[in-house]
Amino acid sequence: MADKARRLIRPHSSPKRARRTEFDLIDLVRRRSQRRPADDSSLSALGTQHSALIKGIGDDAAVVRAGRARADTVVTVDLLVEGVDFRLKTTTPRLLGHKALAVSLSDVAAMGARPRWALLSIGAPARVWRGRFLDEFYEGFFALADAHGVRLIGGDVSRTEGGEGAAGEAPLVVDSIVIGEARGGRAVFRSGARPGDLIFVTGSLGGAAAGLRLLEERGRVPAGADALAGEFAHAPAESSKLTQSQARRLLMLRQLRPAARVEWGHALGEGRMATAMIDLSDGLSSDLAHLCRESRVGADIDAARIPIDPLIEASARFTPAQALRLALGGGEDFELLFTVSPRKASKLPEALGRVPVRQIGEVTDRAYAVRLVERGRARRLRPSGFRHF
Amino acid sequence: MADKARRLIRPHSSPKRARRTEFDLIDLVRRRSQRRPADDSSLSALGTQHSALIKGIGDDAAVVRAGRARADTVVTVDLLVEGVDFRLKTTTPRLLGHKALAVSLSDVAAMGARPRWALLSIGAPARVWRGRFLDEFYEGFFALADAHGVRLIGGDVSRTEGGEGAAGEAPLVVDSIVIGEARGGRAVFRSGARPGDLIFVTGSLGGAAAGLRLLEERGRVPAGADALAGEFAHAPAESSKLTQSQARRLLMLRQLRPAARVEWGHALGEGRMATAMIDLSDGLSSDLAHLCRESRVGADIDAARIPIDPLIEASARFTPAQALRLALGGGEDFELLFTVSPRKASKLPEALGRVPVRQIGEVTDRAYAVRLVERGRARRLRPSGFRHF
Repeated sequence: MADKARRLIRPHSSPKRARRTEFDLIDLVRRRSQRRPADDSSLSALGTQHSALIKGIGDDAAVVRAGRARADTVVTVDLLVEGVDFRLKTTTPRLLGHKALAVSLSDVAAMGARPRWALLSIGAPARVWRGRFLDEFYEGFFALADAHGVRLIGGDVSRTEGGEGAAGEAPLVVDSIVIGEARGGRAVFRSGARPGDLIFVTGSLGGAAAGLRLLEERGRVPAGADALAGEFAHAPAESSKLTQSQARRLLMLRQLRPAARVEWGHALGEGRMATAMIDLSDGLSSDLAHLCRESRVGADIDAARIPIDPLIEASARFTPAQALRLALGGGEDFELLFTVSPRKASKLPEALGRVPVRQIGEVTDRAYAVRLVERGRARRLRPSGFRHF
Repeated sequence: MADKARRLIRPHSSPKRARRTEFDLIDLVRRRSQRRPADDSSLSALGTQHSALIKGIGDDAAVVRAGRARADTVVTVDLLVEGVDFRLKTTTPRLLGHKALAVSLSDVAAMGARPRWALLSIGAPARVWRGRFLDEFYEGFFALADAHGVRLIGGDVSRTEGGEGAAGEAPLVVDSIVIGEARGGRAVFRSGARPGDLIFVTGSLGGAAAGLRLLEERGRVPAGADALAGEFAHAPAESSKLTQSQARRLLMLRQLRPAARVEWGHALGEGRMATAMIDLSDGLSSDLAHLCRESRVGADIDAARIPIDPLIEASARFTPAQALRLALGGGEDFELLFTVSPRKASKLPEALGRVPVRQIGEVTDRAYAVRLVERGRARRLRPSGFRHF
């Protein structure tokens, strides 16, 4: 299928483009996208339960076929702009490729759906086309895609140049599209939480924001970040054995290489466990406020139950009060925040893979009022309360 | 459904963003996206034959439900970068919004599918956030979306800044995603052409490339382009009544405001008429070569049958030889090129709406050889033959 295609991701016709490099890249991406993910056979074994790829890279558009009627298709897109969402000095191409996909996987997970297909648009200035930047970027992207059985089925590539009257170089921009699927009616919205539901969060909080502080102070990515990322897994149990320096480097990876809670998201949707769900991209206080507004409810959060990332303490760089603020207001943890009715909460597993969940509070009928309960006293948690550190 | 949402297209958490403007824009886009297109009721009337919107802008991702099993979902993405794909001096915000959607609609049409859903990512520098640029951009986008019953269901917005060491302003970048649907197995690929099939093309060719020359010479968009675009329709019959100046301005609109052959594309797929199809984005010679390579066939094109845009002659700016070159090698006409088996060709309508088709040649078994037959002599047509004018 499209084996002979040379023009795969659609380059535009402008002669101003770095055409040869573009074709080299497209060829690399096409070949890599045709390699089947490790767990693809298990998906195929489920037969008509899943959508199937009919036409991948190499035509005017990609085609996938729904496996059953009333299948819900979930679509998200995330634009990452150099200088706004990332800096090349404080990440690596491989980590950036991972993160570009992770943020969109997280959105699909937060809908209770299983991510299946990805498309990727890249606008890159001349300095990025040179060398192995894009090769390494795609290695990071595909490593994460393979881990979750996601296939790249399309995209677009272009040069970027400075805008009107620009003297300097244009930024690298990456637009990441992920398409997922859920059984009809099982997608989970932000709007389904009811008073009395229990509030849960996956993993731990504050690590990404702590890592961002450390990266900004340091001004550059730590040496060996790619290798460290290779060994890196969510390992709160071992954090007591880490040196401060190790803990700090791992915190930076929390920022640069977020995990997307794909298994949790899909399990919560498929099992009809969650009444509402959102991923923590802006921070617990902001994202919980979004969920409450959509559901027209309030929430009480128990400060003592918030799973603060143990790497923060191990780094010996933040006070306990700072750690709590990072966990409440720091963004980009990409954990899942969800609500469960009391009668179903006992059926919720304590962990999935190595990723735990913890109950941190309860949904109330005080519309839109998000409160933090600390040592028996409740205070209003403002959505943007802890943005400025 | 998500009526109370204030955070709709997902802005990122970075405090560096022009947050208030972003929210204003998101609010505008959300309200506009909830207005139903004029012909939406006719689609709903078809009931389960079509996918339905379950969740639009306002959650972690959009959700659509397939109307039937074995529905084929078609996805495409096109990245437009300022300074590479367009210049703000030679277009208007409204025309740019139209074109951003049109190029992706054209891809979906070329698959024989019906476009249904759109997502749009915009990275814009400060100068674009000021004033009414983005409002007008979205007006152009939504006018075309409404005309084809396409709903905006998601997207992302961001500031752009110059890259590493950049002194100037960053470019405007637009990433346009369109999702379409086809009855299972009816999508049309580039790969299905067989020797003996007849080759057809919709509309007329060369106008967009001629318009680009005129725009580049002039260096700025003609005054009143938006108003002219409002009256503008595909009107080859009246071209003889136009003044040279009118013809030139309309040629510029061929470049700035391409039509996407949505009705033709869907009819050809749904009716199983086309054996292979591609949209003309690079130009007839290039795109026919792509189709032949994918189908492992050749093609003979009759020069006398090529429907050269009558506006080119009416403009009195190009010689007949130049006009033929523009029609063969000029890109961005966004007409459909397709092949039909001889036994089905008689069933092909001569026009759909006001858009005619014309047979221009025949598929041969001379693998990959694309030839132009002119006054009884055949010569090889190189894919990039007429790129440099």
